[in-house]
Amino acid sequence: MTRQQLIEQIRRKKSYLCVGLDTDVTKIPGHLLLGPEPVLSFNKAIIDATRDFCVAYKINTAFYEAMGAKGWEIMEKTVAYIGQDHFTIADAKRGDIGNTGDQYARAFFETLPFDSVTVAPYMGRDSVMPFLKHEGKWAIVLGLTSNEGSRDFQKLDLFDADKINNSLKNLVLSPFVFEKGADTELYKEVLRKVACWGTTENLMFVIGATQPEEFESIRKIIPRHFLLVPGVGAQGGSLKDISEKAMTEDCGLLVNSSRAIIYASGGTDYAEKARAMAIAVQQEMSVYLSK
Amino acid sequence: MTRQQLIEQIRRKKSYLCVGLDTDVTKIPGHLLLGPEPVLSFNKAIIDATRDFCVAYKINTAFYEAMGAKGWEIMEKTVAYIGQDHFTIADAKRGDIGNTGDQYARAFFETLPFDSVTVAPYMGRDSVMPFLKHEGKWAIVLGLTSNEGSRDFQKLDLFDADKINNSLKNLVLSPFVFEKGADTELYKEVLRKVACWGTTENLMFVIGATQPEEFESIRKIIPRHFLLVPGVGAQGGSLKDISEKAMTEDCGLLVNSSRAIIYASGGTDYAEKARAMAIAVQQEMSVYLSK
Repeated sequence: MTRQQLIEQIRRKKSYLCVGLDTDVTKIPGHLLLGPEPVLSFNKAIIDATRDFCVAYKINTAFYEAMGAKGWEIMEKTVAYIGQDHFTIADAKRGDIGNTGDQYARAFFETLPFDSVTVAPYMGRDSVMPFLKHEGKWAIVLGLTSNEGSRDFQKLDLFDADKINNSLKNLVLSPFVFEKGADTELYKEVLRKVACWGTTENLMFVIGATQPEEFESIRKIIPRHFLLVPGVGAQGGSLKDISEKAMTEDCGLLVNSSRAIIYASGGTDYAEKARAMAIAVQQEMSVYLSK
Repeated sequence: MTRQQLIEQIRRKKSYLCVGLDTDVTKIPGHLLLGPEPVLSFNKAIIDATRDFCVAYKINTAFYEAMGAKGWEIMEKTVAYIGQDHFTIADAKRGDIGNTGDQYARAFFETLPFDSVTVAPYMGRDSVMPFLKHEGKWAIVLGLTSNEGSRDFQKLDLFDADKINNSLKNLVLSPFVFEKGADTELYKEVLRKVACWGTTENLMFVIGATQPEEFESIRKIIPRHFLLVPGVGAQGGSLKDISEKAMTEDCGLLVNSSRAIIYASGGTDYAEKARAMAIAVQQEMSVYLSK
């Protein structure tokens, strides 16, 4: 799916909702376990219930890999069932050097016909490029993630004012003070560098919703790229906050919700309740889009 | 497999060779394509030919994922065929937050009975911990990789002397000069931090063989951890160099060779040639081990 096609979907549906299919066989309603292919049945019902109110589906590959070959088959059938009208994301967080990266791109762009795959940046340029060589396909590179562990490396300061000041104290009589620099965290260097490797037509970034104070400075670095935003709902991020701070004239956002929608009910009305949740989110999004 | 069992394997076989099963259906000898399950047949023949001379097998999951569900089945059968006497590595470079990380751990430690999985550190502590909770299982975390792109982020300097000196020039009349600090690159901070999250019994690091000048300072940070070392052979790293610089009294090394062994011949003698290559590497290793 091209950027223009995605933007048209967003305008038509007044939605930038991505539904996350993190389907866990231990969490789906019990009555489905009596039938054949419970995970696939669950996914199909969720897709039918939500497809009019979302523009994207994100499949968290871990939940399917945990089932082995069977899980891979369910992924194939789920992507096929979604069809061409929604932007599809393999949330696989892959990343490896050239010839291996090419195999991952083949896995998610050819064997499984996803539009995009999430990519971890630690291995650098030659681990991202294999995902940028396919017409109409996208790499969605991890920038700032929504978890606690994002502080361990992503927010490391590449120009650590405290450390420098401490060193200076040992060198000169009167300590002079560096102020904390702007935009010197590792993840911002990742955004800056990776943005040069692709375009706004084949590259997005994952930015978690749990640190909304970061969105303004992120938009200074990547003003036009689409952002895939997890962490709204169960993880505590606010849709209002991130929409106000990061929306562009082309919207530029795909906001993911997984558990809050797909597990809205644990009973036989799970699809109905998922639909109601998706409608509520879409309604809220339509307000932010109209501003 | 425990650390002690791995060390015993190394001593008994006088080898720290890991054979990488990066099996690409377009590169295996043509005659195999006429039979059933060509990739599995190839893997079995390579395993039979090399098992006496190596202590570990590394399966590069990308090559199997590119085949879809079928590839996942081949992985299952290959791991089963290897058995319990070799340390098995899922080279999958996974990494995701808590509940998703648990699913990846389940995929590679339960559904597929690997001893270990390679893990990307960018998402931080809560993306590594799910792989450290399983008795007898290992996380092998990316430290410094063998590819060109390792310079993009892994070698970013967290205390960039040039940048600091330039700033100082603008602030004081006589520029004073910071010397380049030791061990301030990002990947060393990764080694330091991640080493605190596990032990030498459940944590190894990937350190590419292509930058041998780094091994001495790496051993100062992680003196006892096993290192998984790719990049010898096709990528240009030297077995002698890294063995001299990074071997510990428990060996502490698993040196991977993929293409140089499994594609030693493209003809019907591929297994025989793979065996000859594995023997040659094992012989060289036995010399370094005896020192």
